[in-house]
Amino acid sequence: MQLSPTRMLYLVDLAGTLLFAIEGATTAVANHLDLLGILILGFATAVGGGIIRDVLLGATPPSALRNWHYPAVAFTGASLAFLFHTYVQEIPSQIVMMLDAGGLALFAVSGTEEALLRKMSPLVAIMLGGITGVGGGTIRDLLLARTPRVLQADIYATAALAGSATMILCRRLGIKDTYSALIGGAVCFLLRVVSVWCHWQLPAHL
Amino acid sequence: MQLSPTRMLYLVDLAGTLLFAIEGATTAVANHLDLLGILILGFATAVGGGIIRDVLLGATPPSALRNWHYPAVAFTGASLAFLFHTYVQEIPSQIVMMLDAGGLALFAVSGTEEALLRKMSPLVAIMLGGITGVGGGTIRDLLLARTPRVLQADIYATAALAGSATMILCRRLGIKDTYSALIGGAVCFLLRVVSVWCHWQLPAHL
Amino acid sequence: MQLSPTRMLYLVDLAGTLLFAIEGATTAVANHLDLLGILILGFATAVGGGIIRDVLLGATPPSALRNWHYPAVAFTGASLAFLFHTYVQEIPSQIVMMLDAGGLALFAVSGTEEALLRKMSPLVAIMLGGITGVGGGTIRDLLLARTPRVLQADIYATAALAGSATMILCRRLGIKDTYSALIGGAVCFLLRVVSVWCHWQLPAHL
Repeated sequence: MQLSPTRMLYLVDLAGTLLFAIEGATTAVANHLDLLGILILGFATAVGGGIIRDVLLGATPPSALRNWHYPAVAFTGASLAFLFHTYVQEIPSQIVMMLDAGGLALFAVSGTEEALLRKMSPLVAIMLGGITGVGGGTIRDLLLARTPRVLQADIYATAALAGSATMILCRRLGIKDTYSALIGGAVCFLLRVVSVWCHWQLPAHL
Repeated sequence: MQLSPTRMLYLVDLAGTLLFAIEGATTAVANHLDLLGILILGFATAVGGGIIRDVLLGATPPSALRNWHYPAVAFTGASLAFLFHTYVQEIPSQIVMMLDAGGLALFAVSGTEEALLRKMSPLVAIMLGGITGVGGGTIRDLLLARTPRVLQADIYATAALAGSATMILCRRLGIKDTYSALIGGAVCFLLRVVSVWCHWQLPAHL
Repeated sequence: MQLSPTRMLYLVDLAGTLLFAIEGATTAVANHLDLLGILILGFATAVGGGIIRDVLLGATPPSALRNWHYPAVAFTGASLAFLFHTYVQEIPSQIVMMLDAGGLALFAVSGTEEALLRKMSPLVAIMLGGITGVGGGTIRDLLLARTPRVLQADIYATAALAGSATMILCRRLGIKDTYSALIGGAVCFLLRVVSVWCHWQLPAHL
């Protein structure tokens, strides 16, 4: 069976949604929220970045609301985290980090793609790729009344922006869209994972 | 005098706006904000849910900005809370809770109505009903830098979602729109009030 | 060389963007964020108010994303604050306050202008002028998980609203648009500066 690029992107997008929903819901369990709080936090983490992107692009209603697959997948992921949170919490943190990096890479790529489709400039497309990647986690942290992790530490948003920029650069160099997306996603994923392994940090001052 | 359904919904919407504005402003007084902070918090609590809904639906400018009745009613409510806060704070908490449940029911119904008018799917209409009901209080809590109450405890958003779902179900069963709205609103109101009286809680884990 | 009013407004808007970016980034440095956190906080402080205004007006994509001059200026300002933050922090607080008041005046005026261009009512135009002025700082405070300063103290949002209202009043009185904007901006700036010097506060209760 042959998958069209659009269809593949769509499936990858849903995979990222599932992953981020599980992650957001697990955080909610750890913070002693009730069942609905868990569902809301899972949903917001999973689709928050895409909703911000679509609102900024004027593409309303956002695809996460127009297409019921997104809420369905997000609530499934959050329910899984609620039902199996004992097991979810036992997953080694390195694997959680790599799954999270996968979700980040995916959303960075799909956000950039969506922005380019709507004729945004490269600079704006990179920013929207980054926002799509980190927006959900930022909403999660705001709802928990804590400073968003993305502002404080690690190469996280940086990885999303680097992946997005790489993807645009590849297109400019004449590489096919699908490969550009794959290369950009790989750069984001690897930069994130390697930065955790090597304890890379951005400077906080000169 | 005979009221059309639209006009009745509109009046109920304004009543909910007044109520939530008083509530938001009273919270602001209790948190020692100044006069403008009180007005802003009252306004945000009263119209925040509707503004989020309209932005997500792409119905911009939001009705709370297009129609000056909404800001006027919101600021009136907030001013009343500022002027009479000594008396407002003496209102028995059970009555405050019931008024709040009334506002919640109202906004859940009007949010669902608005989403259905714009051809959203039932699942999305339920979510938008819930967002309209709890959005204002969530913005209030975010501005006060505390975890939104809706995430933490009680059957609150759950009541809004249940009312919204009931309303849609009634319509599917062929019940007239006005009665469907009344039944949905009653379910939301009663579920909220009874859950407080009986100390019902959603499970936080299995 | 003769500047058209539109071009002048545009240049003043960019000046305000630069100023608020430096201020937001300096706050980020003081809160020990890393380089990307500094850039994000600078950017959000500088263009946040305008983005909220544009989203509420339905003018999407917001001008801060459509026109790359805005992000470029915002990131330049944030980078300057990062590179020279030792010097930036030594600027006397009175001068910082006056520069900030200048940015506030500017954004209040440009937000009001934009709302009037889109046929909003005077009440809504005043509110959008205020939101444009204080929105960026509010997002900055939310991202740092603290109650927005604008809610808590001082004549800050009040100055923005007063400047915006004055500008609209002047237009009604038949004063030319450019002069109305200048008068409104001056009222905002002076009210803010004098209120700090004289320790004016809004009442927190009667």
